[in-house]
Amino acid sequence: MHNGGDGIMHIPGISDDLFIRGNVPMTKEEIRILTLCKASIRSDSIVLDIGAGTGSLSVEAALMAEKGHVYAIERKPEAAALIRKNAAKFNVEARLSVIEGTAPDAMNKIDNYDVVLIGGSGGNISEILDVITAHINPGGRIVANAITVQNTAAILDYMKQNDMYEYESILIQASRLGKAGAYDMMIGMNPVYIITCRVK
Amino acid sequence: MHNGGDGIMHIPGISDDLFIRGNVPMTKEEIRILTLCKASIRSDSIVLDIGAGTGSLSVEAALMAEKGHVYAIERKPEAAALIRKNAAKFNVEARLSVIEGTAPDAMNKIDNYDVVLIGGSGGNISEILDVITAHINPGGRIVANAITVQNTAAILDYMKQNDMYEYESILIQASRLGKAGAYDMMIGMNPVYIITCRVK
Amino acid sequence: MHNGGDGIMHIPGISDDLFIRGNVPMTKEEIRILTLCKASIRSDSIVLDIGAGTGSLSVEAALMAEKGHVYAIERKPEAAALIRKNAAKFNVEARLSVIEGTAPDAMNKIDNYDVVLIGGSGGNISEILDVITAHINPGGRIVANAITVQNTAAILDYMKQNDMYEYESILIQASRLGKAGAYDMMIGMNPVYIITCRVK
Amino acid sequence: MHNGGDGIMHIPGISDDLFIRGNVPMTKEEIRILTLCKASIRSDSIVLDIGAGTGSLSVEAALMAEKGHVYAIERKPEAAALIRKNAAKFNVEARLSVIEGTAPDAMNKIDNYDVVLIGGSGGNISEILDVITAHINPGGRIVANAITVQNTAAILDYMKQNDMYEYESILIQASRLGKAGAYDMMIGMNPVYIITCRVK
Repeated sequence: MHNGGDGIMHIPGISDDLFIRGNVPMTKEEIRILTLCKASIRSDSIVLDIGAGTGSLSVEAALMAEKGHVYAIERKPEAAALIRKNAAKFNVEARLSVIEGTAPDAMNKIDNYDVVLIGGSGGNISEILDVITAHINPGGRIVANAITVQNTAAILDYMKQNDMYEYESILIQASRLGKAGAYDMMIGMNPVYIITCRVK
Repeated sequence: MHNGGDGIMHIPGISDDLFIRGNVPMTKEEIRILTLCKASIRSDSIVLDIGAGTGSLSVEAALMAEKGHVYAIERKPEAAALIRKNAAKFNVEARLSVIEGTAPDAMNKIDNYDVVLIGGSGGNISEILDVITAHINPGGRIVANAITVQNTAAILDYMKQNDMYEYESILIQASRLGKAGAYDMMIGMNPVYIITCRVK
Repeated sequence: MHNGGDGIMHIPGISDDLFIRGNVPMTKEEIRILTLCKASIRSDSIVLDIGAGTGSLSVEAALMAEKGHVYAIERKPEAAALIRKNAAKFNVEARLSVIEGTAPDAMNKIDNYDVVLIGGSGGNISEILDVITAHINPGGRIVANAITVQNTAAILDYMKQNDMYEYESILIQASRLGKAGAYDMMIGMNPVYIITCRVK
Repeated sequence: MHNGGDGIMHIPGISDDLFIRGNVPMTKEEIRILTLCKASIRSDSIVLDIGAGTGSLSVEAALMAEKGHVYAIERKPEAAALIRKNAAKFNVEARLSVIEGTAPDAMNKIDNYDVVLIGGSGGNISEILDVITAHINPGGRIVANAITVQNTAAILDYMKQNDMYEYESILIQASRLGKAGAYDMMIGMNPVYIITCRVK
């Protein structure tokens, strides 16, 4: 992986076990790769990561946006501390700011972002989308990971009623190889919806 | 559920948590339902359950085959004890015999079966299929649950080279609703191949 | 398969290609098996199938409920004709009535049902659930197949706010073996939510 | 997307419909993104794409390896022509060579590659892996997409018996949102195994 300064962009895909974790849920590698590739992050992107959890998305976004900045919003102090540790581990503290608080309130000091990643919304998804819609840059993207059908439906319904966006969604059910003696057994992971919205 | 004697056939689908479990892997309800429906078990079927584990498939097969018999082959004593407990719990001891041993050796006293369920094969899948092929009744069925690609490939290759069978296979990836606060999150389960082979 | 009169219950799992189809969407075998097993249909059940499509669920329900009755509600004349043809093919016309119309309006002449299957709702899912709630028998079950996140969320939200039901849901992603030369390739099918609600 | 010359690396994820297609099977966007991120392609990588099909993987690999080279091996003339058209469309002809022929024979003029992508193997997977093993650079990677259980098992068995590699595998079942009236229905795609092997 590249951490900036050499003009070579980071390609997402850091192994889950390289992040410092604790008991905080983490965006798994497969979902992280798809989310970050669909986010069209550029080297100078301003990125907002809402519900950042362990910070795995924030860290990889900061590695990609080597001349940009990532704001990680997280309401749990334990998780916020993990994000800072992971930022330090991957040498991106200078361009990854952790904002402790709940969205959308915690978003009020940030403006003009290019990319918004939504991992968790604490039940305020419509309000969060309203704030994003007011402040996202032209050509910007929102990529949301939803693990509940309610959140998925809420985001899709919002997009359907808002002419400003084009959107698409995929449902990813990934399994990973686990060794079962001499054999290779697949271990199922949780299905995740990835919703990609582009400002027209 | 019906346990025989009333002429009403049992429809599969006993909830996982109604079985006595321990640390033995169990065929989950969704896979169990599909396996038993594809097995074409009749009220007088003789059923062989190879690698019976907790006995969940054996118990439901015995409930369906109320005038038939189920032989559950299982090499682990701990699991064999569980099968007996579950047979007692569901009142099917009279038509569910547990054979402690390893297939294909443990199959040598049983002949003329109508249905073979394969949950585990201990790595001897070709030898097991050879013994089944020599002893299964005309019109009989084999339904195998495979969780490794190696076993899946081995069973499919066997069937491809044997004119006696017609076969089909499905891959099932099921998730179950889990409550996440006020929301409903899907929890992924392991993907399972279900291979159904009919004696032509 | 059994079509009644012999006291042996039909176990679900008729092959898709045995149904007369046309251009009407059909509940696929894997989803049909799981839906019918989760519906706890008994030999004397009164069953309502809303949005019956080709009638594959209705026909198998009628085969299971050999002393009961199935009402298939379908608003498209082309599909209603198919249901009648399939009922004739499987010899269940005597206990399968087709009601041409849109739910919930078309439900107003039926009362006291034990099982409701919901395949399609035409966007009226809350109104349909209200009518069901007023007329379903104690101990009854609703099993809904949902292919959109909006419908899934609407049904789950309804159940969450209604103390009368216990509910669970699974998401099934099935693939089927297709021959690719000498090899066996899996062909993905559409993911379906199966929501099972029991009257407490 | 970036096509080189500006020092900014291309992040994978070109939309399927931007490629010229015809009747040749194409690696879908979701699988393409995961494959290319797991391949650890660098700006100077030499990449071999075996069974290149429409060339979608080759084109994105060439966009990533702006100072490297991609060799696309394809035995069908129709597909080889498509790869050339796609290379021209995305301005990477200068670093994407199409080799018409069957692997492993068609691989005999290429040596010292860093990354091998395997989309199709024409049934010669062991021979292909033997040639790769003899010629891949230290630290190189093989990323195979397998759609049959036989090929998946063959690749995993090869890796298990060869100390030179570390490997992992994921099974991806993706669905895409399709509009169903006012609703959003998920359309299932075929499950694909992605096997990643690293030269130790």
